[in-house]
Amino acid sequence: MKHVRLGIIGLGVMGKAHARTILEGRAPRLRLTAVADSDSARLAQFGDIHGFATDRELIASGMVDAVLIATPHYFHTSTGIAALNAGLHVLVEKPISVQRADCDRLLAAHKDQQLVFAAMFNQRTDPLYRKLRQLVTSGALGRIRRVQWTVTNWFRPDAYYGLSSWRATWAGEGGGVLLNQCPHNLDLFSWIFGQPHRVRGFCGFGRYHEIEVEDDVTAFLELPDGATGTFITSTGEAPGTNRLEVAAENGRVVAENGTLRFTRNLVPAPEFSRTTSEPFSAPPTRERVFTFKDNGAQHPAIFRNFADAILRGTPLIAPAAEGIRSVELANAILLSSWTEKPVDLPLDSAVYARWLKRKIASSRRAKGIAAG
Amino acid sequence: MKHVRLGIIGLGVMGKAHARTILEGRAPRLRLTAVADSDSARLAQFGDIHGFATDRELIASGMVDAVLIATPHYFHTSTGIAALNAGLHVLVEKPISVQRADCDRLLAAHKDQQLVFAAMFNQRTDPLYRKLRQLVTSGALGRIRRVQWTVTNWFRPDAYYGLSSWRATWAGEGGGVLLNQCPHNLDLFSWIFGQPHRVRGFCGFGRYHEIEVEDDVTAFLELPDGATGTFITSTGEAPGTNRLEVAAENGRVVAENGTLRFTRNLVPAPEFSRTTSEPFSAPPTRERVFTFKDNGAQHPAIFRNFADAILRGTPLIAPAAEGIRSVELANAILLSSWTEKPVDLPLDSAVYARWLKRKIASSRRAKGIAAG
Repeated sequence: MKHVRLGIIGLGVMGKAHARTILEGRAPRLRLTAVADSDSARLAQFGDIHGFATDRELIASGMVDAVLIATPHYFHTSTGIAALNAGLHVLVEKPISVQRADCDRLLAAHKDQQLVFAAMFNQRTDPLYRKLRQLVTSGALGRIRRVQWTVTNWFRPDAYYGLSSWRATWAGEGGGVLLNQCPHNLDLFSWIFGQPHRVRGFCGFGRYHEIEVEDDVTAFLELPDGATGTFITSTGEAPGTNRLEVAAENGRVVAENGTLRFTRNLVPAPEFSRTTSEPFSAPPTRERVFTFKDNGAQHPAIFRNFADAILRGTPLIAPAAEGIRSVELANAILLSSWTEKPVDLPLDSAVYARWLKRKIASSRRAKGIAAG
Repeated sequence: MKHVRLGIIGLGVMGKAHARTILEGRAPRLRLTAVADSDSARLAQFGDIHGFATDRELIASGMVDAVLIATPHYFHTSTGIAALNAGLHVLVEKPISVQRADCDRLLAAHKDQQLVFAAMFNQRTDPLYRKLRQLVTSGALGRIRRVQWTVTNWFRPDAYYGLSSWRATWAGEGGGVLLNQCPHNLDLFSWIFGQPHRVRGFCGFGRYHEIEVEDDVTAFLELPDGATGTFITSTGEAPGTNRLEVAAENGRVVAENGTLRFTRNLVPAPEFSRTTSEPFSAPPTRERVFTFKDNGAQHPAIFRNFADAILRGTPLIAPAAEGIRSVELANAILLSSWTEKPVDLPLDSAVYARWLKRKIASSRRAKGIAAG
């Protein structure tokens, strides 16, 4: 096999963009051979490509080796399971599912390890985050003590929420900014610093928009090895901020505006604290600034890696199995906000499922797609 | 009266510095006529000034019109009450007391409104904070939506905590970074944005040092008019950060490194959100940067203002009555951290007093000065 025959399921904003990326040859070993969408007008926009009205028809067509799932979130689980059961490789958009229980079902369907199952965490290709991860995991920063990520540059006006009726509803999307915009940030957080073991969430539901889900979040996170963290996001603030600060024994790193600024302690803080006799002194520092010419190859890199994994066994940048972490984090922040209590991870997925079911039952989107 | 005869009570780190400021003539209408400290070696350093072994002797001496109280925190209450009862004007170092119940007692002693009762909130003289307050209170920012202050540039090595045995103990100081380093920041927070009505605190006790009180704090604050806030501080991080970000309807302000950066929305965010038809757009902005040549006149300005208030009735920059807010905020953050529950303000001072009493009872500083 020299090429992978790819089907794209779902031709919404992202599915269409992905189709164009493939058609432009930016992932040369992927060939777009089929698309599926319930909306025939969308299919008509890709008239040269074989179109199907449902995911099941595309999956059963024999025309694809692999599928990209770019449907509304709730469908990721059922479509993913169907594709894996049919022996297809799968690349799933983020979030891999809406809740942890669905992630478990989806990942359990990945029985044949010959099948490549990847997730669209394209921000893992950003050289800034790759460098930061290297600084953290190599031990260059020493022990991490505090992580603070403010990522409020997800401003969305009311017109955005009017794009599709499933958006920003419990029945249609299963969450707001945490499930739609932030899976990338939550994935990077966990990928770089490890998964928090305790979460407290303070969410605003419909604080900035006429929606029922969260559009404003502050979370306090407790991390492995005693570090603490805050994660702040919103779709209501303009202008937004994207600033990630890491306080560690060996210094401080600030990632903002495409720059990584590492202010390194010439003596690690704990050692300095123990040994100096000067009560108002602090460790001397040296600053290193890492700049990056762009934010990496992003979606095309994930596509090329997906093809290489299928054709050559190249390790995945973002295995789908790792996609459970950002879902679990989002779920835990919401659950803590509803219960006004800390939530321990791993998340009790049955408890979350019950809460979400109640939210879906009360959803203003009367006829939901949650069962889809 | 052309001059105010001032007595300084307590010649520790700050008391000594204040004495020098007065002796250098930086507050010309204040004359240092007496000092008090239980340590005769400290008195000897100011041999030209009449020295007393106790606050009560200085207060009763007839040699002063006013006192500056710069003792360990717990003494602020008892010394302040004694001085006010003796008909002296009082300038008290921050925090005005250790807990809200003590603040109430202290402020209740201020019966004679002819007496000037001020607090040493010298950071209110910083032109950066004055400008920010003006932007907020004038309505230039519109409604405030989120405030995030990270003030971790309070690094203190172990040697600092060894300076005096009362430091960083429940019995001797009544708290850690919130009571010693942060009163300024908590005062500014409340002065600029108003007092939060609900507080959640997540403190680390002895996280970075061999101390029993908090040296690491994350707090989530709910503010008047629906704004939210986070306040993060620590004496264990090096290098530290001091960055204050304000997200408001009319734009974002970031205060850091002596600069105030106001990114103003040409259309307020709520109006833009309602009216644009572009789903991924955000309001156009214009940036204004305010720079300041220094951080203001600080302590000498408070001294001069104190003298002017006594001699001419000039309004105080920081009336002691406003000092209750930073104490209450510190108390509430600690209480929430102990109880793992949100704490509503105004604080129930009896509840806090019971908790603090228990902490004092278990304090490693066996013979406390809390009763002082």
